[in-house]
Amino acid sequence: MAKILLRHADVITLDTEGNVLRDADVAIDGGRIIALGAPPDGFLPDETVDAHEHILLPGFVNAHTHSPMTLFRGWAEELLRERWFNERVWMAETSVTADDVYWGAALAAVEMIRGGTTAFADQYFYMDRVAQVVVESGLRASLAWCTFGREEGEIGTDLPGIAAFVEEWQGAGDGRLRTALGPHSPYVCSPQFLARSAAVAVRLGAGIHIHAAETQAQVQNSILRNDLTPVEILDRNGIFDVPALVAHGIYLSDADIVILAAKHASVVQCATSQMKLGLGLTRVPELAAAGVNVALGTDSPATNTSLSMLQEARHAVLAQRLSRSNPGALPGDQALRMATQNGARALGFPTCGRIAPGYSADLVLIDCASARLIPRHDLVANVLFAAQDGDVSDVMVAGRWLMRRGRLLTLDEERIRAEAERRGSTLVGL
Amino acid sequence: MAKILLRHADVITLDTEGNVLRDADVAIDGGRIIALGAPPDGFLPDETVDAHEHILLPGFVNAHTHSPMTLFRGWAEELLRERWFNERVWMAETSVTADDVYWGAALAAVEMIRGGTTAFADQYFYMDRVAQVVVESGLRASLAWCTFGREEGEIGTDLPGIAAFVEEWQGAGDGRLRTALGPHSPYVCSPQFLARSAAVAVRLGAGIHIHAAETQAQVQNSILRNDLTPVEILDRNGIFDVPALVAHGIYLSDADIVILAAKHASVVQCATSQMKLGLGLTRVPELAAAGVNVALGTDSPATNTSLSMLQEARHAVLAQRLSRSNPGALPGDQALRMATQNGARALGFPTCGRIAPGYSADLVLIDCASARLIPRHDLVANVLFAAQDGDVSDVMVAGRWLMRRGRLLTLDEERIRAEAERRGSTLVGL
Repeated sequence: MAKILLRHADVITLDTEGNVLRDADVAIDGGRIIALGAPPDGFLPDETVDAHEHILLPGFVNAHTHSPMTLFRGWAEELLRERWFNERVWMAETSVTADDVYWGAALAAVEMIRGGTTAFADQYFYMDRVAQVVVESGLRASLAWCTFGREEGEIGTDLPGIAAFVEEWQGAGDGRLRTALGPHSPYVCSPQFLARSAAVAVRLGAGIHIHAAETQAQVQNSILRNDLTPVEILDRNGIFDVPALVAHGIYLSDADIVILAAKHASVVQCATSQMKLGLGLTRVPELAAAGVNVALGTDSPATNTSLSMLQEARHAVLAQRLSRSNPGALPGDQALRMATQNGARALGFPTCGRIAPGYSADLVLIDCASARLIPRHDLVANVLFAAQDGDVSDVMVAGRWLMRRGRLLTLDEERIRAEAERRGSTLVGL
Repeated sequence: MAKILLRHADVITLDTEGNVLRDADVAIDGGRIIALGAPPDGFLPDETVDAHEHILLPGFVNAHTHSPMTLFRGWAEELLRERWFNERVWMAETSVTADDVYWGAALAAVEMIRGGTTAFADQYFYMDRVAQVVVESGLRASLAWCTFGREEGEIGTDLPGIAAFVEEWQGAGDGRLRTALGPHSPYVCSPQFLARSAAVAVRLGAGIHIHAAETQAQVQNSILRNDLTPVEILDRNGIFDVPALVAHGIYLSDADIVILAAKHASVVQCATSQMKLGLGLTRVPELAAAGVNVALGTDSPATNTSLSMLQEARHAVLAQRLSRSNPGALPGDQALRMATQNGARALGFPTCGRIAPGYSADLVLIDCASARLIPRHDLVANVLFAAQDGDVSDVMVAGRWLMRRGRLLTLDEERIRAEAERRGSTLVGL
């Protein structure tokens, strides 16, 4: 792999000390960062990039989404108010084909790369087709095939099929692709099915990507039926015996937080989606204080409408400060860590999400030419509160450029937009 | 003025019925919209624009900002947490020159036009220099020279000077510029000064742009000292005898809302700034239900960091839904009205903010080519939750293009960026 030297960048390292360097060089070799500040003696780059007037930061990690649902973007807006969302969208999804999934995920990949996202955790169906998009796009991902686990109708209980998917794709794309099991949630999966999924995950050495505690009603029903909270149900059935990613986790008890911390589970807040649906926020400060790894995700583009992680990090800060009536409730640096390195850890890529020697070269350059990024008193504030996806000029994953100067290098953007537009209209016309 | 025909646009009219038209034509003559749907018989345009794959909507109105503070963008981030904001920034502002104000406002104008803002309500100092930016840029604005009204030290009490500003600039720029008096707030202005300001406004036929009820402490202090809420103080001293724009209005009593409605005052929520500072939200649903005109503003770029009205409207919806735990708390169509026509009314431009015959041609085109705006099931949702400033391709005020295909036509963007960068660094180096 190429030796690359990025020169004269303003670097938001997100290292332990939160260092922000001005006019620094970054040397990349073998897909990894090998030096920061100045290149090592005798480093002869194949490519030198002048990153003057650009901010360099780790790529964003969208730690919970359903990427093919770009095809339903904006379609369920009115339904949200009626809270019919799950039912209606799930109905429409019975019409979704494997090809739709491919093109929907491809559209998501275009949007994600353009917005500086370098990795995503996805949970949906026909995930072999999403895997194809990951391999082709050069993105990093953790893919979970969603299962409903309703034994009665045998809906989404095909664990042997899921195991085959996990084994086939684990480590594909030069290790950029990881797989996980995706039992949807404790409210649609029986305890027995959760336990069976956990056993398969343990056997395959895979993680689990699941939803939990999204509403108070879910928690109340769980306690009524089982005398256990949703998190306790997951714990009792072995879900936390493997690396687990819990999406939303809004209504968590103090005892739930103790369990999540002890079992090293990750919790993914999706602020935009949770705000838009009026669900509430995840208890980020308490989870972080307890040592739980808290990451950020956009959730489905059918609820969020957007896949922008810049926006997601911004909303995480604003919402937390509003709900706690405290302008210090979530510092900007912490939000950027949640949107990068915490997400990477949740997905199983612990050497991503930081600009430091030894870390993977999953990087984003933000062009500071736009009026909204002038002056440059505080780069973290400029990125978090003023930068927009369109300011992202260059994106690299594992030392390979996916976008250079605003041009996508791995995907046929024009064809993807046309196919997605056509398929989106057809699906909704049903 | 030129006759212009926009063809094949998808139009978010924001008319009474909330009509969204697909593939419609809009005819413009004399700076006004004269027909919608199809051009009138015999209409011979000087310019025909193909707006295929573009959304046309009314320009945004930023109904409360301090535009020259772009120079302090990101500088007060850490101070916010310490709540030293006002004191520290006000101290630094003693170093701000009239030329700094000009270049700071010019940078704001670049950012606003690029984000689809066609009008803004500004409150700051050296407002004759902001007026110059308004005339040159082609934007529409209501400008208020901020006065502190502390009689003791004679700080900011120059009402004759303010009156001269109001009279000199009222109606400038072919009527695009309106002026207002700007007593800062009931917590820094004495009741006597408020009454004197109101009397001057009545005499000159000008409006008033003021802050009020931003914190619970302000309300409590007001009641302790005067037995009156801030809104009651304003009412007693004649502020509502002229068209009044009240910024923030967060801690309002039911009785305050009755006063604001009876006196036809406008209230401007600045969701981003209010969230970021942990202040709380304006009671938008109650104000709207009482018939108060509620608009949206970014507040200062030193707190918000950004001047994006797309972002401001988005945050207004998300924050309201979160705080009310209700996904229907603020419908998208209502948020777009607040960000356009309600703002126009607050500024004193009642024939702006709607795409309908007779309304001023203050228009924005959004290019739908970006992946984040595909597919196009719900144009209001796409604009409100997915579009970003960079998707705005064309901006028109009163039938005159300020931006065409991403190129600014009235401002020297490169020079403005360089001057603002230099001045911002110098100011903060003090």
